[in-house]
Amino acid sequence: MSFSRHHLLGMKGLTREEIEVILTTAESLKEISFRDIKKVPTLRGRTVVNFFYEASTRTRTSFEIAAKRLSADTVSLSASTSSLVKGETLIDTAKNLEAMNPDVLVIRHPMGGAPHLLSRFIRASVINAGDGLHEHPTQALLDMMTMREKKGTLQGLQVLIVGDLTHSRVARSNIIGLKTMGARVMAAGPPTMLPPHLEAYGVEVGYRLEEFIPRADVIMMLRLQLERQQQMLFPSLREYSRFFGLQPGNLKKAKKDVIIMHPGPLNRGVEIHPEVADGPYSVILDQVTNGVAVRMALLYLLLGGEKK
Amino acid sequence: MSFSRHHLLGMKGLTREEIEVILTTAESLKEISFRDIKKVPTLRGRTVVNFFYEASTRTRTSFEIAAKRLSADTVSLSASTSSLVKGETLIDTAKNLEAMNPDVLVIRHPMGGAPHLLSRFIRASVINAGDGLHEHPTQALLDMMTMREKKGTLQGLQVLIVGDLTHSRVARSNIIGLKTMGARVMAAGPPTMLPPHLEAYGVEVGYRLEEFIPRADVIMMLRLQLERQQQMLFPSLREYSRFFGLQPGNLKKAKKDVIIMHPGPLNRGVEIHPEVADGPYSVILDQVTNGVAVRMALLYLLLGGEKK
Amino acid sequence: MSFSRHHLLGMKGLTREEIEVILTTAESLKEISFRDIKKVPTLRGRTVVNFFYEASTRTRTSFEIAAKRLSADTVSLSASTSSLVKGETLIDTAKNLEAMNPDVLVIRHPMGGAPHLLSRFIRASVINAGDGLHEHPTQALLDMMTMREKKGTLQGLQVLIVGDLTHSRVARSNIIGLKTMGARVMAAGPPTMLPPHLEAYGVEVGYRLEEFIPRADVIMMLRLQLERQQQMLFPSLREYSRFFGLQPGNLKKAKKDVIIMHPGPLNRGVEIHPEVADGPYSVILDQVTNGVAVRMALLYLLLGGEKK
Repeated sequence: MSFSRHHLLGMKGLTREEIEVILTTAESLKEISFRDIKKVPTLRGRTVVNFFYEASTRTRTSFEIAAKRLSADTVSLSASTSSLVKGETLIDTAKNLEAMNPDVLVIRHPMGGAPHLLSRFIRASVINAGDGLHEHPTQALLDMMTMREKKGTLQGLQVLIVGDLTHSRVARSNIIGLKTMGARVMAAGPPTMLPPHLEAYGVEVGYRLEEFIPRADVIMMLRLQLERQQQMLFPSLREYSRFFGLQPGNLKKAKKDVIIMHPGPLNRGVEIHPEVADGPYSVILDQVTNGVAVRMALLYLLLGGEKK
Repeated sequence: MSFSRHHLLGMKGLTREEIEVILTTAESLKEISFRDIKKVPTLRGRTVVNFFYEASTRTRTSFEIAAKRLSADTVSLSASTSSLVKGETLIDTAKNLEAMNPDVLVIRHPMGGAPHLLSRFIRASVINAGDGLHEHPTQALLDMMTMREKKGTLQGLQVLIVGDLTHSRVARSNIIGLKTMGARVMAAGPPTMLPPHLEAYGVEVGYRLEEFIPRADVIMMLRLQLERQQQMLFPSLREYSRFFGLQPGNLKKAKKDVIIMHPGPLNRGVEIHPEVADGPYSVILDQVTNGVAVRMALLYLLLGGEKK
Repeated sequence: MSFSRHHLLGMKGLTREEIEVILTTAESLKEISFRDIKKVPTLRGRTVVNFFYEASTRTRTSFEIAAKRLSADTVSLSASTSSLVKGETLIDTAKNLEAMNPDVLVIRHPMGGAPHLLSRFIRASVINAGDGLHEHPTQALLDMMTMREKKGTLQGLQVLIVGDLTHSRVARSNIIGLKTMGARVMAAGPPTMLPPHLEAYGVEVGYRLEEFIPRADVIMMLRLQLERQQQMLFPSLREYSRFFGLQPGNLKKAKKDVIIMHPGPLNRGVEIHPEVADGPYSVILDQVTNGVAVRMALLYLLLGGEKK
């Protein structure tokens, strides 16, 4: 198995073999986080810059911990504390960071395509940590790692994604990756939240949650962006929750070994009932744990591991 | 001597023996900060997450430096730069951090009891770095370390606390700890700032600073929360300063070896006169130095030292 | 060669020999940032506190990376997330940090002279990372390192500085340092932006860019502080750009081996045309790379290197 990419910009373009290398590497690195001494010297002397134009707890922390467990040095920049306010262009800021010889630039940016743009100007490896409504590939990879861990394989797996797929970079990256790996993807949500081109991606689309639940091996609930309500995409929180929130009652018709996922942060009582989020089918916290492992794997693979 | 706690939530419940173990350990670790190479490998590969919902310079920095001097990895989150704004519950945020396998979660939160709540859901060690008006145990421990260092023992020591005890988590933690260690505590302040139950804690209460000064071995001035003035707890800053600020003149009647303490940040000219803050009796900066040592001791003891 | 200073407060007062030691040390440390393992153990166990009262991306990141490449521990504080808001004096805050035994305090502050003030109260080494309109010595040193690297020597070099010299700490530090090293400095800008005492410093002053360009070995464009326009220092951006922005046409009359510098962040199309910023004469990103090397050199020299 080999991996020769220099950037991780999205799930789009990753081959089945590449995804498998990432997931297998992540599985082997996962146990480091369960040791007393959670640290290996693999990336000692490498510099990872976390560059977040959007607020983030878990993704930034996850990258920072992943880098430190591989002994890399980390520097974190957020839009609020930096001179980004001074009107410098994104490319100039990135070239400036680049000139300090980092090995990896992890970027989250509100503009779709920002990481791709940077990768054309930057020698360092660029990792997309979420770009606008476009992609969030490390989330998809940790989701797929969790599915494979619980289900053995992604091939033929039936994955139901529920909620606002139109505005979800998590859904988009998952759909691309899951199709590459041979899974079958279903999507449920209000018509205003299901983009018209979903079927062209090979996704089975429906407007009622119940019809898909009995077939699903995996149910992935998306976070409802509450600020969307002003855009009138749904009549009320209560309606949304009633028709597209995952309730304990829904699970009666589910497979006995279904798993429930959510990328977080949770709106408890909106898209997911607290009993479901904390219940026996939920693997939400496994996703977070696997997030560190997937990010360790990517840092390791993009930097060529110990060989370089 | 042994220490088998997993969390440090407050001074309440700590035994005399436990406090002595913490202080003695802190005393032995203190010299590390005076070396050229201020670092020992004790906690290499451990992860300490500093999670501050309230702004803080000295406490966060002190924990971060303490962790680094023991070679632990640190990640710091503040409410302003994280997704806490997205409305996730405290417990969900903590469980997410937990899923990344930190060893210690240091938390400051405006809600009293927040660390206690988390400790019921979290495997990692929780350290309370200040919870609302409730407790601030690491401050009390560094204060007690400073008193013991300067006075030899806490047993029988006469400690005068001055100011707004009603709204001070520092005072509360000190009173609990000092009583456990056999010290005698006196409190002085305007009646609006002395909670009615103080005497039930065994504290001697008075409304005039002068009456207690001659007996005090230690005078601990509390910071006046200037925003309290709107609540009409005192008539004016000038009045407060005249009756409850520590002036050079006050010290004429004090013991020759009295020590003056303050948790910082100082309101110079309000609760403490600059000549007193910078004078020969002041141990205010010793408190800060000892803060690093106490936090090193706690990280070391909670993680089971090198044994684990 | 020797270096016995304990603080770096400004270019003022540095001797020619001291500047040469700093630049030569920086040149020898530069290659560390081009290794795979970008880290040497020189400052292991030392603590560097970055204390920024003003927002900064590149300067803070540069110091943080420089410290980490020498294996020092770093703690970063910014005004927004700290208790600076609580009204503590600068000196008290600094003394508190000092009491935690850092080795170096890097400070940026809006008040000119703040680092000098601190250095009188603090045992740790103080490095000025920009103080008000006063000095920014590490910027001047990285600029001089870049000039020496490209031109071989500073002696006799003709350096043209263009823009708002009145409000530029970068210009001020460069003028002082360049004069010490025997360079000749010219300044061009609108009369409102050229301080009357420039000529007393030995700077040749002019109001037209064109007259100096043919003689310049180095052209240093200053960032236009856009907020100054409200002060009516210039009629319009367009006028400013036309008369004092560096355009491709300007370079036709320049020396064949001229170099173009800018401290960043760039206002593309205002003080510098994009073609010039990205063109063959530009050494703007070399400046950033050299910034890490200069800061490594200063940390190393101020802490006495490995000898201590």
